[in-house]
Parts: sequence; C-alpha cells; structure tokens
Amino acid sequence: MTRYRLTIEYDGRPFVGWQHQAEGLAIQDVVEEAVFKFCGERTTVYAAGRTDAGVHALGQVAHLDLARETTAFRLAEAVNFHLKPHPVAILDCAAAAPDFHARFAALERRYRYRIVNRRAPLTLDQGRAWRVSVPLDAGAMHAAAQVLVGQHDFTSFRAADCQAATPVKTLDALTVSRYGEEIELAARARSFLHHQMRNMVGTLRLAGEGKWSARDVKKALEARDRAAAGATAPAAGLYLVAVKYPE
Amino acid sequence: MTRYRLTIEYDGRPFVGWQHQAEGLAIQDVVEEAVFKFCGERTTVYAAGRTDAGVHALGQVAHLDLARETTAFRLAEAVNFHLKPHPVAILDCAAAAPDFHARFAALERRYRYRIVNRRAPLTLDQGRAWRVSVPLDAGAMHAAAQVLVGQHDFTSFRAADCQAATPVKTLDALTVSRYGEEIELAARARSFLHHQMRNMVGTLRLAGEGKWSARDVKKALEARDRAAAGATAPAAGLYLVAVKYPE
Repeated sequence: MTRYRLTIEYDGRPFVGWQHQAEGLAIQDVVEEAVFKFCGERTTVYAAGRTDAGVHALGQVAHLDLARETTAFRLAEAVNFHLKPHPVAILDCAAAAPDFHARFAALERRYRYRIVNRRAPLTLDQGRAWRVSVPLDAGAMHAAAQVLVGQHDFTSFRAADCQAATPVKTLDALTVSRYGEEIELAARARSFLHHQMRNMVGTLRLAGEGKWSARDVKKALEARDRAAAGATAPAAGLYLVAVKYPE
Repeated sequence: MTRYRLTIEYDGRPFVGWQHQAEGLAIQDVVEEAVFKFCGERTTVYAAGRTDAGVHALGQVAHLDLARETTAFRLAEAVNFHLKPHPVAILDCAAAAPDFHARFAALERRYRYRIVNRRAPLTLDQGRAWRVSVPLDAGAMHAAAQVLVGQHDFTSFRAADCQAATPVKTLDALTVSRYGEEIELAARARSFLHHQMRNMVGTLRLAGEGKWSARDVKKALEARDRAAAGATAPAAGLYLVAVKYPE
C-alpha cells in the first residue's frame, strides 16, 4: 500500500459538496470513481476540508491508499483523464508518509470569499461570486473583521448542524480588500466551524453597508447566539484556497 | 427617438456570437428581446465588435434607438431584469448623440486572451481560457509579438470569411505577460480582422514552445498566406475588454 497526497481544484457548482451523500453527486464520489477506473481499487479519499454544495476549491488537499504499483505522475494523469467531464482536476500528486492524514494533520486552512459589488447581474462570474448591489465600504469591513481575529467562541457564526467538538476556534487572519468592483475576504485558521466563513461574510456585509459598526460585530460574537449575527453568505463566493501541513 | 450607448458584459459560451444568425441564439437576439419586453419596441442593437461563438466580453459597446421616453438608468435596470437567465448584463447605459455609432465611431478596441499553462485540465476556467499543457516561455512570446506591432498586411492572420475591405491594419500594442500559471495576451488596435487575435495567439504559442523564433513569426507575416501562420487559438480564451471613442 502506498499513500498519496492529492492537491485538487474544482468548480463546486454541480456537486452536493466534497463529501459523499445519500443523494446527489459529491466531489469525493467522482474522484473515487476516477481512481477505480484507473486501477480497479475501491478506495476512500479523505479531504482536508469538507466543502459544502456550491463551494469551490483552488487547493483542496486529500489522501488515499493504493495497492497498485504506480507513480504519482501516472496517478495524477490517469485520474485527470477519468475525471472528465467533471470540473475537478488533480493539480499535484505526491507519495506521502503512511501516517499522513489530509484532514487531521492540517496546520492551517485558507479560504477566500469573492464579492462582486455592483448593480449589474453576474455573467462570467455566475456561481463563482456573490453579487451585492448596494455599495460596500471594504475599509469598514476590514476594520470590523479584526474583531473576529484571535481565539473566540464562534457559536454566533456556527451552523446548527456543525459537528465540531468545541465552538472555540482561533482565527489567525481575516482581511478585506477591494480590487475595482471586487471585494475579496481572505481567512486563515487551523480549522473552521461549519458555515463559519460564510456567516462571518454575511455579518461583515452589514458593516460594509454601514448598518453595523465594529462594536456591533463584537456584540454579535459575544452573544454566542447564531441569531445575533448576520445571514449566511451564498456558497458561490467561497473558495478553499490552500491547506498547510508540517515540514 | 433617443440613442443610447450600452456597455455590455457576457459569457460567450451559450451563444453563436454577437450577431444574429439564421440558427442558434446570438447575444444581439437576447438583448433586442429584453428591450422589446421592456418597451414593446423592435429595435436593432449595433455593437462595436461582432464577437464569434464562445468569445466573451467584459466591455462590449453597442447602441440602439428608442421612441419610448425613459432614463438610461431605468433602461439598464429593465434590460438586465429581462436578460435573465442569460449570462449577459448591461454594465452601463447613457444617452448618446443621435449620430453616435458603436461600430463606426470606435477609435480603439482592446482584446485580452487568457492561456492557462499547466498539465491539469481546467475546472473553474472551463470555457473561459485556453489550457496549454506544454511549458510556454512568455518572454519569448512577448518578443515575437513585437514583430506584429505596427501597420502590416495581416493576410496571414485573417479568416477566409473575413469581410474587411483591406487586410492592412495597424496593431497598436500586443503584450504577453505571465502571472503564475496564467499567460495573458493584450492587444490594442482601431480594428481587427476576423480571427486576427486568435490566429496571432496560435502563432505566438509556437514561439512560446520554442518551435518558432521571432524571425519565423516575421516570415509568416510577410508570407501574406494564412497557411504560413499558426493554428487558430480556441474562442474560449478571448475577451473583448473595452472600446474607445472620441471625446
């Protein structure tokens, strides 16, 4: 048995999310099926981030074990061939230590959220960003975001079905930058609660509109009550950008 | 009658191109239909660039005449509403002089061509870029591109069905830049021949691969023979970025 580490890019639109579900097609399903077509082995692919339906990845990391003798290069090429026409691609593949675990060994996950701040509907970016038609102040969003950085009880930003053992997480960084009509939110943490990024974005939108001050965001955080924070931002704008490991 | 100038963004994938065709859906068709739904007037929308099937626009410019009294803002909002769910949006709308002509008054058109230079298939960029899996030297492509800048007979880069009166055009600028795995070609000219940009990209790819020198590109240009230049690059990578007018 050899363990391989995969770096995976995907367009989340056609999928029910990373993880296998009772109904619908998951990214995990199509990767496992492509591996099976290549070598006839039924294997489980474990990912660092179990992204939701419609969420994209530029650098998801996953691992799997194979009995078949092959090379990392051949595995990536063959899986990419069999993944067609799904919008999922192996960007990188390498042999890993037998105890490498994509999910449990991850030291840091990076997410990006894209807002297109304009009145006109999206065309090329449909399903790839959140269009917000009221003007947003990215500077005010960035200032309010700093309230969330650090170790906190993120209950106010946690989905009801979140399975994390604790709502206490450490958010290492959260920045908000404007590039023309686009606003990009970038977050780094060892791990995130379910919907945490999208709930933070939905809350910071209120700060961007001038409806909430940084103090209001702090109060929402301290309330430890999901109802105290803003709405969940759409999946379409969210990207899992990279995952970091020791070494 | 009031003449309006529209700035239009679209994803070219589902369309047969800008211009109305005997079969298939054109961007012109869906814009004219949206105007009709708004005000009941059958009008012709004239665009600066008659982009081909699959070619995108970030800043197409077009004009139309309306008898109905309205404002530029209401027109844009209503047309955007009626354009749904097509991936076409009016970014800007303004009243124009009665003799403004989007096509004939244009002083400059800017096109961009996106190459993603990597082995892995495209996911989020499917239909929005050209994936070239062999390594390309963007510096060599840029150097070779300078051979094409200036006033030349571009017969070698002209589609057989091109309807331009003359193959002599002035290419004001053609730059090639690399951003990570992406290579961007940016061109400026008063006007372009049919397929000129895509044929230049297909030729410069040969320079990027090291198969052709800048001298070979010059020889292809001087041959005034379509067969002497490289293949036509796919429509998916091409974007009409902006159109400039006097004033």
